[in-house]
Amino acid sequence: MASLPPTLRWEGGPDGRLLVLDQTRLPEEVREVHLATTAEVAEAIRSLRVRGAPAIGIAAAYGLVVAAASAPPGASPTERLAAVREAHDALLATRPTAVNLRHALRRTLAAAAPVPGLAAGLLAEARAIHEEDRLACERMAHLALRYVRDGGAYLTHCNAGALATGGIGTALGAFHLAARRGYRLRVFADETRPLLQGARLTAWELERSGVAVTLLCDSAAASLLASRRVEAVFVGADRIAANGDVANKVGTWPLSLAAREAGVPFVVVAPWSTFDVSLLTGRDIPIEERSPEEVLAFAGRRVAPPGVDAANPAFDVTPAALVTAIVTERGVVSPVTPDAVAALARA
Amino acid sequence: MASLPPTLRWEGGPDGRLLVLDQTRLPEEVREVHLATTAEVAEAIRSLRVRGAPAIGIAAAYGLVVAAASAPPGASPTERLAAVREAHDALLATRPTAVNLRHALRRTLAAAAPVPGLAAGLLAEARAIHEEDRLACERMAHLALRYVRDGGAYLTHCNAGALATGGIGTALGAFHLAARRGYRLRVFADETRPLLQGARLTAWELERSGVAVTLLCDSAAASLLASRRVEAVFVGADRIAANGDVANKVGTWPLSLAAREAGVPFVVVAPWSTFDVSLLTGRDIPIEERSPEEVLAFAGRRVAPPGVDAANPAFDVTPAALVTAIVTERGVVSPVTPDAVAALARA
Repeated sequence: MASLPPTLRWEGGPDGRLLVLDQTRLPEEVREVHLATTAEVAEAIRSLRVRGAPAIGIAAAYGLVVAAASAPPGASPTERLAAVREAHDALLATRPTAVNLRHALRRTLAAAAPVPGLAAGLLAEARAIHEEDRLACERMAHLALRYVRDGGAYLTHCNAGALATGGIGTALGAFHLAARRGYRLRVFADETRPLLQGARLTAWELERSGVAVTLLCDSAAASLLASRRVEAVFVGADRIAANGDVANKVGTWPLSLAAREAGVPFVVVAPWSTFDVSLLTGRDIPIEERSPEEVLAFAGRRVAPPGVDAANPAFDVTPAALVTAIVTERGVVSPVTPDAVAALARA
Repeated sequence: MASLPPTLRWEGGPDGRLLVLDQTRLPEEVREVHLATTAEVAEAIRSLRVRGAPAIGIAAAYGLVVAAASAPPGASPTERLAAVREAHDALLATRPTAVNLRHALRRTLAAAAPVPGLAAGLLAEARAIHEEDRLACERMAHLALRYVRDGGAYLTHCNAGALATGGIGTALGAFHLAARRGYRLRVFADETRPLLQGARLTAWELERSGVAVTLLCDSAAASLLASRRVEAVFVGADRIAANGDVANKVGTWPLSLAAREAGVPFVVVAPWSTFDVSLLTGRDIPIEERSPEEVLAFAGRRVAPPGVDAANPAFDVTPAALVTAIVTERGVVSPVTPDAVAALARA
């Protein structure tokens, strides 16, 4: 993979700094921002400066270190711990659909104790989550490579790449790995309205990796599939229920319908932390509704006339039956059934 | 219906002026442009200043009058006729998918003869096409009203309204008519990338008619259908094959897949001039590929990084089996079968 700047990183020790690549400014500007307070971390997650289910989990974990480290100098260990708990709750509320956020926050908080070395303990856990995600991405990419061949063309939606994770990505990981091995690939990228993560982020990171990218409107993906010009669809996930139903960026479900119609494999790539086996089916997954302004205006220009309202769900749910395979770092689930997911949970 | 400015009109006699509402400027600016030459008419059609299958047919018919009237003052009737034939060919080449363009041009040209009253003859034919379309819209709206109820909510894609026709529209005609009768309706309008005809045009014209409009991203339409918050999908058409396969704005096919999945009726409203019974199935319909720039940039701002290509098909094909009904001014085809279309052809 060509050099991509890190999606997020912790600089220094427990009193160090959380830096994230500001994804709202890509591709025009490659700029890191320093998130100095819990409120700044929460704002960065809500406004999608840092986004992607695994990446927001990692950012939130580091956010707890920020909370511990940025407590007033004279704060007692107990007061610092209270600040961390408060940060946990604030960060958990930022985005409701991706479950990786909850996993990472719970896990990091479990490492917290009212001791002088609180921030160091949290940082060790956050770093571990970050590193595990990096390794999980590598492992998923190797496993997903079975669906990729030299000279092949693929379709993806939104950005499930390096920019969405602590590593080389989920759905895009196999493309980065294949490019590293010298495969020539073409990836068709849905632009992904309203925030154009496909046009701004996926196109940017794949192009830097040497993968040929063709952008298309989300609504054109179905006829692309019907034309049989792509060999598989690769997407990430924000939460996966116990039966294998997949919540992912809005537009994923209609894509899976068109893929089934066209006989094209539909591959979901997501780390185990994306699973929420406490939910029996996708119907129970909360779907984030974002601001109507994301739809009504574009690049600061209002496109709709006054008096018009907008609906803006950020995700939809693809039923397990439409998913050919779910690739995780624990192994590949195919066909996607409750039993196969249960087996993975025990792995 | 609240007052909407005419989509296009001919002012005066055979030496008069063709005026079209410049739809590239809506909704910010309501401005008519005068198309003084065949080249200007062709440019207006290609750049979508005037768009919508029926409206471009009417504009092209008037374009032949422009060609006859704008010939040099000393031109002989034969020279004027040659100019009209040339205009016919140039206008026919502007957009390949909508067959109404071909119908209207052929029909108007058939009224041409190398006589001094050439322009008057063409104008009479163009006016007849315009008036027939207006009446067809009224008739379709009355027939489509069976799928609309007071208090209901509906989904539409692109703009198949007054702005796309010489009357009150095809798919949106029933909503305008229902509003005129005092129905309270909510219409969910797909924004329709890349050119946002839903956000800019459908929202604008329905709102002026007193219909409540909720905009959404194209990729969010499927989950809206799954939520059962709408009672039917209404779309127009650009060309319909002999078996009832429907070419319409890209994104219509995946919408029909989601509608089937959700059990929501999928209604196509289009005048008989949209049918091309010379084509057995939708596979034979030519699909216009438009400029990649429409996808790569937005409102003058480039959204994709350099080195990235784009695919931009303007239409897709919905198989007849996914269409609940096709409403035409000749009657309603439901279920949609080759025999039912053949019966309509004889009507």
